[in-house]
Amino acid sequence: MEPVIPVTPMNHNRSLETMTETATSELDDSFHVFDTTLRDGAQREGINLTVADKLAIARHLDDFGVGFIEGGWPGANPRDTEFFSRAQAEIDFRHAQLVAFGATRRAGAKAAEDPQVRALLESGAPVITLVAKSHDRHVELALRTTLDENLEMVRDTVSYLREQGRRVFVDCEHFFDGYRADPEYAKAVVRTASEAGADVVILCDTNGGMLPAQVHAVVSTVLADTGARLGIHAQDDTGCAVANTLAAVDAGATHVQCTANGYGERVGNANLFPVVAALELKYGKRVLPEGRLREMTRISHAIAEVVNLTPSTHQPYVGVSAFAHKAGLHASAIKVDPDLYQHIDPELVGNTMRMLVSDMAGRASVELKGKELGIDLGGDRELVGRVVERVKERELQGYTYEAADASFELLLRAEVEGRPLKYFDVESWRAIVEDRPDGSHANEATVKLWAKSERIVATAEGNGPVNALDRALRVGLEKIYPQLAQLELVDYKVRILEGKHGTHSTTRVLISTSDGSGEWATVGVAENVIAASWQALEDAYTYGLLRAGVEPAR
Amino acid sequence: MEPVIPVTPMNHNRSLETMTETATSELDDSFHVFDTTLRDGAQREGINLTVADKLAIARHLDDFGVGFIEGGWPGANPRDTEFFSRAQAEIDFRHAQLVAFGATRRAGAKAAEDPQVRALLESGAPVITLVAKSHDRHVELALRTTLDENLEMVRDTVSYLREQGRRVFVDCEHFFDGYRADPEYAKAVVRTASEAGADVVILCDTNGGMLPAQVHAVVSTVLADTGARLGIHAQDDTGCAVANTLAAVDAGATHVQCTANGYGERVGNANLFPVVAALELKYGKRVLPEGRLREMTRISHAIAEVVNLTPSTHQPYVGVSAFAHKAGLHASAIKVDPDLYQHIDPELVGNTMRMLVSDMAGRASVELKGKELGIDLGGDRELVGRVVERVKERELQGYTYEAADASFELLLRAEVEGRPLKYFDVESWRAIVEDRPDGSHANEATVKLWAKSERIVATAEGNGPVNALDRALRVGLEKIYPQLAQLELVDYKVRILEGKHGTHSTTRVLISTSDGSGEWATVGVAENVIAASWQALEDAYTYGLLRAGVEPAR
Repeated sequence: MEPVIPVTPMNHNRSLETMTETATSELDDSFHVFDTTLRDGAQREGINLTVADKLAIARHLDDFGVGFIEGGWPGANPRDTEFFSRAQAEIDFRHAQLVAFGATRRAGAKAAEDPQVRALLESGAPVITLVAKSHDRHVELALRTTLDENLEMVRDTVSYLREQGRRVFVDCEHFFDGYRADPEYAKAVVRTASEAGADVVILCDTNGGMLPAQVHAVVSTVLADTGARLGIHAQDDTGCAVANTLAAVDAGATHVQCTANGYGERVGNANLFPVVAALELKYGKRVLPEGRLREMTRISHAIAEVVNLTPSTHQPYVGVSAFAHKAGLHASAIKVDPDLYQHIDPELVGNTMRMLVSDMAGRASVELKGKELGIDLGGDRELVGRVVERVKERELQGYTYEAADASFELLLRAEVEGRPLKYFDVESWRAIVEDRPDGSHANEATVKLWAKSERIVATAEGNGPVNALDRALRVGLEKIYPQLAQLELVDYKVRILEGKHGTHSTTRVLISTSDGSGEWATVGVAENVIAASWQALEDAYTYGLLRAGVEPAR
Repeated sequence: MEPVIPVTPMNHNRSLETMTETATSELDDSFHVFDTTLRDGAQREGINLTVADKLAIARHLDDFGVGFIEGGWPGANPRDTEFFSRAQAEIDFRHAQLVAFGATRRAGAKAAEDPQVRALLESGAPVITLVAKSHDRHVELALRTTLDENLEMVRDTVSYLREQGRRVFVDCEHFFDGYRADPEYAKAVVRTASEAGADVVILCDTNGGMLPAQVHAVVSTVLADTGARLGIHAQDDTGCAVANTLAAVDAGATHVQCTANGYGERVGNANLFPVVAALELKYGKRVLPEGRLREMTRISHAIAEVVNLTPSTHQPYVGVSAFAHKAGLHASAIKVDPDLYQHIDPELVGNTMRMLVSDMAGRASVELKGKELGIDLGGDRELVGRVVERVKERELQGYTYEAADASFELLLRAEVEGRPLKYFDVESWRAIVEDRPDGSHANEATVKLWAKSERIVATAEGNGPVNALDRALRVGLEKIYPQLAQLELVDYKVRILEGKHGTHSTTRVLISTSDGSGEWATVGVAENVIAASWQALEDAYTYGLLRAGVEPAR
């Protein structure tokens, strides 16, 4: 059978109204959204989760509405054991069931006497995922046992856990590679697990080398030949994990294993968010409790914060760029009908459309941007024209406003009010960097300012000239604007424009500043990095004071 | 027909030997790898390419071996017009043909008289991609013309460009949404383009909302109904752009449009690298010139450096984590047989397996690199080990040698000879940047050096502190090394590492220097931008003197 999803409006651009009509208040067991961020996701290079992190992520996943949260491998490490006891004591799960992960019993022993199997039971998790080998060479090389004993290990461990009242899923590790090497043995593992009482047998593309058409073919055949309920676990090594997961669903799998933001070993796992969004919005399949999809963007970013990774700006559906439009060609038509230029309404996933102001953009995008900032320019054609001219002129000099919202807002307000917003006036500044014979550096800056009719001269040292200027500016202004104490420079980017002939190049600096409750970006452009940084710093502090509700000086 | 790729060992884990056997020295026209990084990739939020950047990327893409490089929209902006003239004058393309992008003529005019069409011809590009509307509502709303006139615009523009001796491809914008709305009209656009002489008609998923099964179904039908040669252009809004591209190939498309690292509007475009890797390694289809796939990792990272984005660590095939193994479970078995734990041999794509925690540079790549530089390290295991250790240690501090060949060669020579190459010794330096009340800046630097037993003190001004240091260094040394007069600093890039909490970050500077006959890149890392620039400058001049054949001072 061909895995064709009908290409009809029904499966696409489903409006909020349509979704509410088809909503059911309860999800049944017929389709599983299974998250393994806490186990497989934690294998990602650079992720190192504490128990508190795991509890925080579990709360977010439950809030999102996944059916199963695989918490880790109790018994394998003390952190995971502690997680299971605390999760059950501290979290009042609304949607999800907690799942413990472990291996089938050791060769030549009894499941009932295996300490690792006991740890799974002692975790108290109502559901247990057992990993089983299904590739003949892995059985021989990694388990060092016979193919028959491996089947016996699956049968014995599943039966025993079922007898103990647990629901059991079986992960067939390296299934697709195993199927290629020996399809009959791979299917025998599926059959054995299913007959012993496993509710779902998950086919794992552990090495991640599969493509969707291959996954579809294998899942179809295994389903037809074994009759077992099948799940899919896809790694993203070909960049196709989301598509592989959907291909398995097309072929009859009714259980998808994913991780938040696609975290996982090597390249990562199938990303939970685009998988769920495709099922809900493209297939018209309800897989989350009502209203939860609209929390997706927030939850994706919140989980990124917990694992201490910057949320990917270009992640499908949830990235800040996912519904950002740059081309001026589009901007005018977007005003007429936004649905012509986006594949779904971003509100369905809790995201928003953004217009990027750039030299490719015209009047329409400036108006839309103004609206986004709460500044209505709709009526004033002449004003919009002036702003467009000003943006074009500045971008020609090297400014970029698509990445510097705060500087754009200051520019816009200056045009609306006819003069720039000023909290202080700069008389002059100076920065000195000195390399000493011992290899260390001295960085010193002095600023001379006027604020509220007071002349201020301040000097500070820093770990570099920009840091020294930043400190001097802050030291000088804090007496007058104590609000500045809250501000922190959180990111700093430098770009040299017009790469050829270094000496005539222009420098662009982008600075991100935070006041604890929000972040904003400002831009500076000048013939050298220090002068450009100074401009971006001036804008950063001006915008920070505006945000804090301080009245301008004049 | 079901799009099933046979799941056989033949399509997988193809060894280097197998590849060489099936290699053909020439690629024919039957399958196109078409890159649009310079046009569609440049739409990505945060990317802003100079002409020099575009030329550098075009060189990398040609080096990689793509068949077509779409360079931009000549006539639409002066930067793209300049790119076409300089690319043809300055680049000696080995593999790729240059493609100019533009729209069909305006409604109610003649193609021969349309200034935008004229700009396409004047670009001199041998191939032209025309974007055509194929969605009825876009014709009405964005073009504001009739459906028939739109067909006429396609026919007239394609015919005219063919008469002028150009090869023409037609991009059907919003094709899949258009096909859903009115399949007959969408197909009529394909037929019209093909009949008018377009060699390939590309079906574009402009809004990126498609899934692979849908793409497969639509491409199959359009191919059967029109007989046109079809291509695919997929945006990644569902996270399926790579899979959508492959689904189109399964259905009979013979032209794939991609961007390096998946750069592009909103979420991005189909990523060139996993698409090409899947075609070569999974389909067993030769789509690049012989031996180029092994350059993929290097080229992916080099392009990221040009656009000034951090290379994604988790990108399929080319990310530094793509073949990194963390799980203790795997580590022991990997020793026995690595192929059990990786879907391809990473060497096939120029990447390496890493056991975490570990370095980026392995022995093999150091040896290979040495060979490339004409320094044979093959015999000396201990020396190679020392270089690997040194690279590891420096990369941990933030140095990157992938993009700084000259600094790597200096490091290598220092290890080979047991001491660094020195033409001068630095006693100290100082840079001052001063903002004057009139808004202008004074930049002054002083350097104190020793060269050939002579103490040199030199002061110079510049348009920034780095430029002032550069000039002071040159003024000081030129008396002793007149060869330095030839050198020119041609590019300068700054990246702040460890973005969060600005004050503790490290700064990396990459400098490109030219002596008229060649260019080389050097790197510096320090706690501030001036000190990092100084290091890169020191390496740049040292390497320049080495290239000029000057004997080291001691």
